[in-house]
Amino acid sequence: MSKKVPYRFYLSEEQIPKEWYNMRADMKEQPDPMLNPTTLKPVTAEDLYPVFCTELAEQELDSTTRYFPIPDEILEFYRMYRPSPLIRAYNLEKALDTPAKIYYKFEGNNTSGSHKLNSAVAQAYYAKKQGLTGLTTETGAGQWGTALAEACAFFKIPLTVYMVKCSYEQKPFRRSVMQTFGAEIVPSPSTTTNAGRAILAENPDTGGSLGCAISEAVEKAVSTEGYRYVLGSVLNQVLLHQSIIGLEARKALEILDEYPDLIIGCAGGGSNLGGLIAPFVQDKLLGKASPRIIAVEPASCPSLTRGRYAYDFCDTGKITPLARMYTLGCQFVPSPNHAGGLRYHGMSPILSKLYHDGYMEAVAVEQTKVFEAATFFAKHETILPAPESAHAIRTAIDEALKCKESGEAKTILFGLTGTGFFDMTAYESYLNKTMTDYIPTDEDLERAFARLPEVPTV
Amino acid sequence: MSKKVPYRFYLSEEQIPKEWYNMRADMKEQPDPMLNPTTLKPVTAEDLYPVFCTELAEQELDSTTRYFPIPDEILEFYRMYRPSPLIRAYNLEKALDTPAKIYYKFEGNNTSGSHKLNSAVAQAYYAKKQGLTGLTTETGAGQWGTALAEACAFFKIPLTVYMVKCSYEQKPFRRSVMQTFGAEIVPSPSTTTNAGRAILAENPDTGGSLGCAISEAVEKAVSTEGYRYVLGSVLNQVLLHQSIIGLEARKALEILDEYPDLIIGCAGGGSNLGGLIAPFVQDKLLGKASPRIIAVEPASCPSLTRGRYAYDFCDTGKITPLARMYTLGCQFVPSPNHAGGLRYHGMSPILSKLYHDGYMEAVAVEQTKVFEAATFFAKHETILPAPESAHAIRTAIDEALKCKESGEAKTILFGLTGTGFFDMTAYESYLNKTMTDYIPTDEDLERAFARLPEVPTV
Repeated sequence: MSKKVPYRFYLSEEQIPKEWYNMRADMKEQPDPMLNPTTLKPVTAEDLYPVFCTELAEQELDSTTRYFPIPDEILEFYRMYRPSPLIRAYNLEKALDTPAKIYYKFEGNNTSGSHKLNSAVAQAYYAKKQGLTGLTTETGAGQWGTALAEACAFFKIPLTVYMVKCSYEQKPFRRSVMQTFGAEIVPSPSTTTNAGRAILAENPDTGGSLGCAISEAVEKAVSTEGYRYVLGSVLNQVLLHQSIIGLEARKALEILDEYPDLIIGCAGGGSNLGGLIAPFVQDKLLGKASPRIIAVEPASCPSLTRGRYAYDFCDTGKITPLARMYTLGCQFVPSPNHAGGLRYHGMSPILSKLYHDGYMEAVAVEQTKVFEAATFFAKHETILPAPESAHAIRTAIDEALKCKESGEAKTILFGLTGTGFFDMTAYESYLNKTMTDYIPTDEDLERAFARLPEVPTV
Repeated sequence: MSKKVPYRFYLSEEQIPKEWYNMRADMKEQPDPMLNPTTLKPVTAEDLYPVFCTELAEQELDSTTRYFPIPDEILEFYRMYRPSPLIRAYNLEKALDTPAKIYYKFEGNNTSGSHKLNSAVAQAYYAKKQGLTGLTTETGAGQWGTALAEACAFFKIPLTVYMVKCSYEQKPFRRSVMQTFGAEIVPSPSTTTNAGRAILAENPDTGGSLGCAISEAVEKAVSTEGYRYVLGSVLNQVLLHQSIIGLEARKALEILDEYPDLIIGCAGGGSNLGGLIAPFVQDKLLGKASPRIIAVEPASCPSLTRGRYAYDFCDTGKITPLARMYTLGCQFVPSPNHAGGLRYHGMSPILSKLYHDGYMEAVAVEQTKVFEAATFFAKHETILPAPESAHAIRTAIDEALKCKESGEAKTILFGLTGTGFFDMTAYESYLNKTMTDYIPTDEDLERAFARLPEVPTV
């Protein structure tokens, strides 16, 4: 018998986890190592130091430390917006008439509007601690850039953000928020880097891509004294920081005498999903529990469901290390009609490995169905979700409806990563029915796969 | 000795107040009654029924019931986003190097982005209960319209929102949010009402005003079968619903062994300020405590600090009852360079009376100083405030700096009514230094006062 569950459950400040959890420490098989693209040998910390902050480079390569203590300065920032609420979706359940119990961990109640702040705070702090003079990054939908701008303003570090050009144009106010926090914003591809100029030469009208913006941000960082590059997803270090989402969620559920049968998260590069599922994956790896885990990706950018598990560059300009991951090819750019984020060509190597080894499932959903779910959710739960988050809502609703058919009272947990206040252009196109769906053809994907680097995998 | 105070303090769900508090029940002298504009006699419930929902009309006129039980259906909605956090501004205190302890009650963590939802939920519920077929309202900055659209979507009631035209144009995404929740949005003044047509005939290029949008919404409501009009501020019923802000704040402070020396809130029509201060005013009226209370208004729309305490219409079209309040005259329209809300010509009759009787002070601040405070606050507290809320921040900072000078460790409580995600046009104009200040001249005000209706006051 479960306890009476409030609508919104908050842990106390003292209950905020004081350590991040590193899934790799419990994985029986490790993800394949990142490779130096010149030597094709596994990258070393020394390879990474020119690009990343020292401590972050070390976190990136550390597959054995199970728990990393969260520094006090980061905890202090976390306390300004955490713990995030675990919400029981009573009104959504009622509207769906489902016996399922639906919970969501809501990460949107901070000014960045998403979970991205969890890693931004950590990365800005380590940069400050190292005495760096500036940071560069890229942003797609704008959530990561906003989060990092907030964190850099707090720790007083200059920040340059390369913003994917089509987002820059679709979301002028995202730019203004970052500028309010003092960041410099450059639409990407730009003429300020070799990578940007090369991409513009090949395709002058491109709306940009995350992979391209990454190339520019990395180039700017390594060519500027005292600067380093930071990334909001994909990397092991990011999943480490984001584990706070899952750790809080598991602790809250424990207090409520609950455990999820099903955990659902949207997946672009994997930062939210990897964070949400981390402690539950641990339970699975240690044989303590066996929840189903579902990654939800856009049908227009289906790296897990239709990509190759292969070594690929993390960026379009091919200046980053190679990572073995599910990928659509680093040249893949989702159709311009794709709204919102989740537009990265690859997937976190850790999540790719978990998926490959059967610890996780994946589904791809079309965006009109996603916005249908978003609007339905908003009307019943009163939160306007980010399009990214609405991918998880779509699948949570679908699973709850299956429970209605089967009569099973499953416990569903999904990640509501953020709010949609800056995505109203996309909502408008859904409302006035000009939004369309796009699914790449097999030929599209074959063309992209043909350009994958040739790297032997075991 | 105070307890260790967390950054964010949440009451538990069970601690959400179950009654609203009505300040009038404890006021020694009552605000002057609203008058029927034709007879100049005090309005009766019957006068109000064609315009307002029955129960809301009764709440409006009830000056004796001290506590109103909050219906379960409303409490259920409140639980989806309340209690709101009471936040200790540790980082702002540090940045200001002040001995003051600064607390703020943050009402922006819901999709409407502001405290307006507290009354919207109540008003939509009573409309549903009465079996009404639709509601009309007006919105200025858009917070009230968004809140009401959310509430009406939940209770399944059609809603038409007259949106002040200059806001409609400055904030296209506000409109989309309301539409996502299913509301119909009409820019005001419009050609759909007699009031709108008359105002357009006199001034075709007007950007509109709250007073004008009220006229249109009231006209539409009384001329449509089964419709009623609802208002997000000024009215007694709204202050009643908003008392939940102050009741939660006082309870939270009590648990933390704190009591404010100083309570600061922004004031447009008075809904947030009236709600925040309600239980503290009770303490003052009953002689239990004597906190200073400061209303902060824009220098460009200074109803308390420079207005007349006189009978005036609540709308520009002169179709509403007359209310005795501090007013700039119902024809007053703030300068178009005024960003954000707080643009109403009058002030809640209850707050006007409290101010008149010396229970409350008032200051007017210029908008560039307000945005300076907003930006400073965002960088240190990580929340991007609404311009309206930033008026309170400005004065809270000024008072904290006075504490620094005097060495006094005062406890300051202010209302952070909402977030600024839809106000980026205004933030942009501040950032690129095109924002200017405007203070009406004495002649401007005299011209407006000359058009006040002639109603004898005692």
